[in-house]
Amino acid sequence: MKIEIITTGDEVMQGVIVDTNTPWIAERCHMFGHEVVRHQAVADDAAAIGEALVAASKNADAVVVTGGLGPTADDITVEAAAGAFGAKLVMHEEVLEEIRRFFERVGRPMSRSNEKQALVPEGAEVLPNRVGTAPGIKVKFGGAWFFFLPGVPRELYQIFDDSVAPWLKEGAAQAISERVLRCFGLPEASVDEKLSGVDLSGARLSFRVKFPEVILKVVARDADPAKARQSTTLAAGAIREKLGVAIYGEGETSLAEALGAMLVERKMTLAVAESCTGGELASRITDVAGASAWFDRGAVTYSNRSKMEMLSVPEDVLRAHGAVSEETAIAMAEGLKKSSGASIAVAITGIAGPGGGSPEKPVGTVFAALAAEGGVRAHERHISRDRVGFKQFVAWTALDLVRRHLLGA
Amino acid sequence: MKIEIITTGDEVMQGVIVDTNTPWIAERCHMFGHEVVRHQAVADDAAAIGEALVAASKNADAVVVTGGLGPTADDITVEAAAGAFGAKLVMHEEVLEEIRRFFERVGRPMSRSNEKQALVPEGAEVLPNRVGTAPGIKVKFGGAWFFFLPGVPRELYQIFDDSVAPWLKEGAAQAISERVLRCFGLPEASVDEKLSGVDLSGARLSFRVKFPEVILKVVARDADPAKARQSTTLAAGAIREKLGVAIYGEGETSLAEALGAMLVERKMTLAVAESCTGGELASRITDVAGASAWFDRGAVTYSNRSKMEMLSVPEDVLRAHGAVSEETAIAMAEGLKKSSGASIAVAITGIAGPGGGSPEKPVGTVFAALAAEGGVRAHERHISRDRVGFKQFVAWTALDLVRRHLLGA
Repeated sequence: MKIEIITTGDEVMQGVIVDTNTPWIAERCHMFGHEVVRHQAVADDAAAIGEALVAASKNADAVVVTGGLGPTADDITVEAAAGAFGAKLVMHEEVLEEIRRFFERVGRPMSRSNEKQALVPEGAEVLPNRVGTAPGIKVKFGGAWFFFLPGVPRELYQIFDDSVAPWLKEGAAQAISERVLRCFGLPEASVDEKLSGVDLSGARLSFRVKFPEVILKVVARDADPAKARQSTTLAAGAIREKLGVAIYGEGETSLAEALGAMLVERKMTLAVAESCTGGELASRITDVAGASAWFDRGAVTYSNRSKMEMLSVPEDVLRAHGAVSEETAIAMAEGLKKSSGASIAVAITGIAGPGGGSPEKPVGTVFAALAAEGGVRAHERHISRDRVGFKQFVAWTALDLVRRHLLGA
Repeated sequence: MKIEIITTGDEVMQGVIVDTNTPWIAERCHMFGHEVVRHQAVADDAAAIGEALVAASKNADAVVVTGGLGPTADDITVEAAAGAFGAKLVMHEEVLEEIRRFFERVGRPMSRSNEKQALVPEGAEVLPNRVGTAPGIKVKFGGAWFFFLPGVPRELYQIFDDSVAPWLKEGAAQAISERVLRCFGLPEASVDEKLSGVDLSGARLSFRVKFPEVILKVVARDADPAKARQSTTLAAGAIREKLGVAIYGEGETSLAEALGAMLVERKMTLAVAESCTGGELASRITDVAGASAWFDRGAVTYSNRSKMEMLSVPEDVLRAHGAVSEETAIAMAEGLKKSSGASIAVAITGIAGPGGGSPEKPVGTVFAALAAEGGVRAHERHISRDRVGFKQFVAWTALDLVRRHLLGA
């Protein structure tokens, strides 16, 4: 089925509130195998609402409309819909009784304006609201099924799950299989290039940047669920083959989480020393529940003195090569490895900007070093990002350095 | 002016991502006194995009379109627009050169697919993108002005602020004055209560939660810019009087930035010791450009051994009171103050969850301690948030503890 979603409300139009109802509905429609063909949002204006509804009835098989079912004067969705399609509004006695009972239950007086909420288009089906006063309404207008639902999220969710979702499920012709792969270290354009022409076994690939990573999704539909699943399995395999080690995980896993699982498996621990990332690396690590099993400590050494005191970086290394240098990064990692006793110590030093750059070491320069049983490795990178983006990207780079080390990559 | 906003992208249609660009744009259009008459969102489908654009050109004076300007095969907005309005696409040599230079600057090879981003409708004006490759495009189609902008938020924001906002401002009939006040430590409902009935001198107040803070905005419009400014000045003063020390700053200032300015003024430095916040506190501090002037170091001490080794916490304190205790928080702050020589040391220990709680010390328990010249102070809090929200809130609480200490509050 083709589905359109319409939101009404001045607050949405003026950007006062972010409309999270529409993505919530869209995700469910998509999950049931339907195609969401358009969203529209319009102000609390009868003409604008009517126009949007009529356009939707020509564009889609089903239309989900949220907002404007409340008791106040600017709640006009049902009236506008009846006007646009020439339908008559009738007082629904059972709904009126429900609303009366609702107010008795919560011990508040029912206002006259609540009676309006019992007006429904003639011939419409009423969808019960167990958590508020406005019921949902299901009605066929101009060849499309319309579902009118309240804009209050918890009321919307309840009515949708109870009364709309089963209808959508029934109407779904095909099963859907979906796989999400997470990729770090390759820019979007390179991912695109590497995957051009790859055989996806009938699945559909989409990807998006969620800085600093790229998230790939393969979706397959088939009347036979096993076939849909087989398509995504084959497609995911083909993608992994092309992108190799750049795919760090699947589903909702974060890079730090994937790394943590590898360390736990190997019974290893990690310590980090940060200059330019200033705690960002440690914080991404400690976002992972249970990180204490594999994360020992972090040192945020912003001053030269703290590098000497906390990490035993020799003063002459700092003097000879500067705080931002491969030599200092190595000394930081080695010092921390020794003092912490962790299996692996990783260290970062660089220039996050906007100040502090020089012709030899411009803003964006970063050195990372990793000290482990087998010795030390280091690399230099140049990251062109604002301060906060630089910190995020470099923190991920450090996590990835450890991950690749464990993989022998 | 009547304005319509259009978003393109399969991921929006499928509910994979919440479209926060549209409310961001809508808020600005509304602020400049224009009426946003409709939002539309459509999939990456040339026919659907074309139809939406044509409908918008009949409905509005200006149309802001986001998404689909990237280098990949599913980025088709400009092509679809040219098709819908019968415009010719031409290679814009300067833009192509800009894209080449961008890749040189970031030291990555330019892919062939990036060339597509230099194709613009004949006669269009190019709006520079300083942070990415896809430029914005301004062009008149079917009687309406169209602004095509990238969907990547930081690119969108930059191009909009540089090239669209001035155009919208010019088209506005009235002068607008705006003041933004930032508040931490009071829940939204308390802010609402404290401000009910306050005289806003004709300005309009709105506020929203941007976790963990509450952001208040006062806006006044007047044909006379001085009068508009006077309204917001008086309103901001009245709000500050009611909320007092909970207002930590104005405009784009962060809490860490406000604190940094206070420390610099007093020629003081700060060191932090974190257990449960795991680097989040240090990372928010080091987000501030120039933080090295007042931030000395941070210790992320996840293990007991690291608390003893990095902060000289006595083993018997840990044994007698546990790692999550007021006594340990105080020992952490005092140990760090002594070893770092910073003017102020602040320490955090607590239980972020989801595991690790007990009946006496449930998940969400946190102890903070501050050691300074005059001695040490500590407090206990209970924060009911998920792990990441807990870390963020507690980090802000620690910054606020230092700020209030400096204010003698």
